[in-house]
Amino acid sequence: MNIATIGTGIIVEGFLQAVEQLDGASCHAVYSRKEATAKKLADKFGVQTTYTDLTAMLEDPHVEAVYIASPNRLHSEHATKALKHGKHVICEKPFTSNVKELEALIALAKEKQLLLFEAITTVHMPNYHLIKKHLHQLGKIKLVQCNYSQYSSKYNQLLAGETPNVFNPEFSGGALMDINIYNVHFIMNLFGSPEQVRYQANRHPNGIDTSGVLTFTYNDFIATSVAVRIQAA
Amino acid sequence: MNIATIGTGIIVEGFLQAVEQLDGASCHAVYSRKEATAKKLADKFGVQTTYTDLTAMLEDPHVEAVYIASPNRLHSEHATKALKHGKHVICEKPFTSNVKELEALIALAKEKQLLLFEAITTVHMPNYHLIKKHLHQLGKIKLVQCNYSQYSSKYNQLLAGETPNVFNPEFSGGALMDINIYNVHFIMNLFGSPEQVRYQANRHPNGIDTSGVLTFTYNDFIATSVAVRIQAA
Repeated sequence: MNIATIGTGIIVEGFLQAVEQLDGASCHAVYSRKEATAKKLADKFGVQTTYTDLTAMLEDPHVEAVYIASPNRLHSEHATKALKHGKHVICEKPFTSNVKELEALIALAKEKQLLLFEAITTVHMPNYHLIKKHLHQLGKIKLVQCNYSQYSSKYNQLLAGETPNVFNPEFSGGALMDINIYNVHFIMNLFGSPEQVRYQANRHPNGIDTSGVLTFTYNDFIATSVAVRIQAA
Repeated sequence: MNIATIGTGIIVEGFLQAVEQLDGASCHAVYSRKEATAKKLADKFGVQTTYTDLTAMLEDPHVEAVYIASPNRLHSEHATKALKHGKHVICEKPFTSNVKELEALIALAKEKQLLLFEAITTVHMPNYHLIKKHLHQLGKIKLVQCNYSQYSSKYNQLLAGETPNVFNPEFSGGALMDINIYNVHFIMNLFGSPEQVRYQANRHPNGIDTSGVLTFTYNDFIATSVAVRIQAA
């Protein structure tokens, strides 16, 4: 399968390294708004084709699937466009900025009979499947606590008055979208939908959540899900 | 100072061991509804006097202070009675079953000019004072997570269909009253009163909370406080 990539962040390099190890998959093209950025990434992974025009890339008949790693806010637009051009889609987390966008994407993928994946890796890992398989042996679950906290390399920029995408409300950034989403998948893939969810967040003056606590109330147990995307300045 | 004790649980033995190590304090009398129980405890710690009549003990002029370790529900009644008899009071946690009872106790102690303490040991420990002293060096606090979970020796009784005091709503039992209260003191002694508190609990069919998650929302940070008083059956 020939894949094309949208975005040139560090995660795309991780994706391309993974593709290199796959039989039957290869990267056919990379897209970036800037030619130099596209070229640099393409050269690093021996990709022949670069695009700075997204439509042109999606019209390339050699491209079968698209990996989307643009800023969160653009996921929906890019995935929609890719599906409309008949390409399968693997989209970075968070899938979309809201449920409405996701439902539209799912409907479109079904209509077009195309594959649509969110690149949440953790729930596909062997250790996660082992947890799921042996969960019943733990007896009755009463309390689940998840914590995914990590210093963001972009936090210094935020403190310096800049607004990197990951801390930009305009780009659907924030701790929940960025890393707490892993806890959400961890919990909901094991236990399904809770009766109630509540989010308490620390917010930057620009409104973005830099850390927060999710509480999931199930019929007979409780789960907490914490993410901190910063450290003390 | 001559102290008398109310209650004969294991915690009273811990209290009496501590009193033995104190200069200027000694146990003058122990009270229990049952003479045999009072005698057994008194003998173990070389206490001369036992009472099975609470009023009689509180009328004993040698008793200057009372240590109360009766079931939670009775704390208020016993502390009120002791204060009215002119005795200083050290009362086991939780102080009372509700704020109203506590406010009445405080007013009474002030009126009588007597000392009134809740026996929350943790916030008086040297390591806690070190935390408090050096807290500002940690920078801006964003998230605090406390967890005090411990298998209750009484949980098997609960599962067997009995209702030990600690799991009895009638006696103001439950995980919050029993051990999460330590987290509450830990947090509130460091950070003061939160803007908002919320409690999500797992409840036994009799209504008692066997585990639960407290979330404290402060102006600029969040604290979670978890207590589990059970393990999987």
